[in-house]
Amino acid sequence: MTVRKAYGTLSSPATIRVLASLQEYEFEYEFATGDMKAGEHKKEPFISLSPFGEVPVFQDGDLTLFDAWTMMRFISHCAVKPEKEMVFMDPKKQGIVAVWIDVADHQFEPPASKLRKELVEKPMNGLASDEDAVAEEEVKLAKVLDVYEERLTESKYLGAEIFTVADLSHLPYLYCLMGTPAKRLFETRPHVSAWCADIMSRPAWTQVVDMMEKSQV
Amino acid sequence: MTVRKAYGTLSSPATIRVLASLQEYEFEYEFATGDMKAGEHKKEPFISLSPFGEVPVFQDGDLTLFDAWTMMRFISHCAVKPEKEMVFMDPKKQGIVAVWIDVADHQFEPPASKLRKELVEKPMNGLASDEDAVAEEEVKLAKVLDVYEERLTESKYLGAEIFTVADLSHLPYLYCLMGTPAKRLFETRPHVSAWCADIMSRPAWTQVVDMMEKSQV
Ligand SMILES: N[C@@H](CCC(=O)N[C@@H](CS)C(=O)NCC(=O)O)C(=O)O
Ligand SMILES: N[C@@H](CCC(=O)N[C@@H](CS)C(=O)NCC(=O)O)C(=O)O
Repeated sequence: MTVRKAYGTLSSPATIRVLASLQEYEFEYEFATGDMKAGEHKKEPFISLSPFGEVPVFQDGDLTLFDAWTMMRFISHCAVKPEKEMVFMDPKKQGIVAVWIDVADHQFEPPASKLRKELVEKPMNGLASDEDAVAEEEVKLAKVLDVYEERLTESKYLGAEIFTVADLSHLPYLYCLMGTPAKRLFETRPHVSAWCADIMSRPAWTQVVDMMEKSQV
Repeated sequence: MTVRKAYGTLSSPATIRVLASLQEYEFEYEFATGDMKAGEHKKEPFISLSPFGEVPVFQDGDLTLFDAWTMMRFISHCAVKPEKEMVFMDPKKQGIVAVWIDVADHQFEPPASKLRKELVEKPMNGLASDEDAVAEEEVKLAKVLDVYEERLTESKYLGAEIFTVADLSHLPYLYCLMGTPAKRLFETRPHVSAWCADIMSRPAWTQVVDMMEKSQV
């Protein structure tokens, strides 16, 4: 059997996206972590696997992938099970899932990652958050969540009536932001709030959360 | 037969990405343009199709897609022809194409779009470019092109030995930047330079260029 390997760190949302995909689709894998503070990801042997010097990297036999969005897509492509129809063989259904993955990437993630930086990373490093930046990004995120609220009145999940990677792709940043004041943006929108509670309680995701929490002890 | 429709404007790189895909895969389609300066894309009926108020939008029968990266993926998914094997049925081959599409999106496009703004949009509107921003983004783009140069010594195209949407996704910004001083970043890298000349001379792309040039007369 091919050994699947993921390299990254548990403090990286992009790494978490991949671990969440591997857990959700029940793949066996090895997880190898490195010392990013020491810049290991900028040196050999890592840089030969990931030419932009970023984590994560994913290997499946002789295939090496170095973008977390691609890994998530690939893992779901490889995981076609009739009872867990995460990748649709129908291009139209796949197209709708793809829209919401690209929305996660192009609309949700820019403000979400800036808020993570201001509200999680900076305080963790003893720095003050930039209040103006927080306010500005919250406005942007709220607009995205208004679109989600409307979408989730018509569809149980973003990409389909069932959970897909379009939902999964949000988990790393939802997890971070739920511990910050930005939480209220999700809680004040009833469909968004129910969707968050639902996707964050999936067994595969709680396993990833366990991994993160154990690594912090 | 289903009528495929694309809505957008010829000054939008995201719209151009979709038109390039439709031409490349030889789909019949109608192209409808609107008055973005008058804010038509922020109002009904457009906003019901595109909840973030952005162009382009693509419709294929009852399917509406509103992200250009998704449209490009969808069009190539629908266009499986044995002699034009643009989407691979093999998940590993598809995974490699997907990496280079995500590289285009996450690594190439951020500096390319900022350079377009400074070197094309601002001068067109009688504004001066910010020289510091240009220098900074050129450094970032050069690093991306170094990775491409190495990739293109091993592989004829970015995603495979044949042309795929991973290459196509670069055309809108290549077209803009080739008319600016940033052109030298491409020309000084022999494999990148040959790749640009190759993909920009594809018949499907020259048809899109014709559409853009006719609209400017
Ligand atoms: N587009 C990439 C981005 C990955 C990324 O930003 N990784 C961060 C950690 S979350 C990283 O490696 N940063 C280190 C650096 O760039 O030096 C992906 O989604 O895989
Ligand atoms: N992620 C979107 C972005 C599209 C986009 O940025 N469209 C621009 C034109 S290239 C637009 O509609 N801008 C108008 C606006 O946001 O008001 C996509 O790739 O489709």
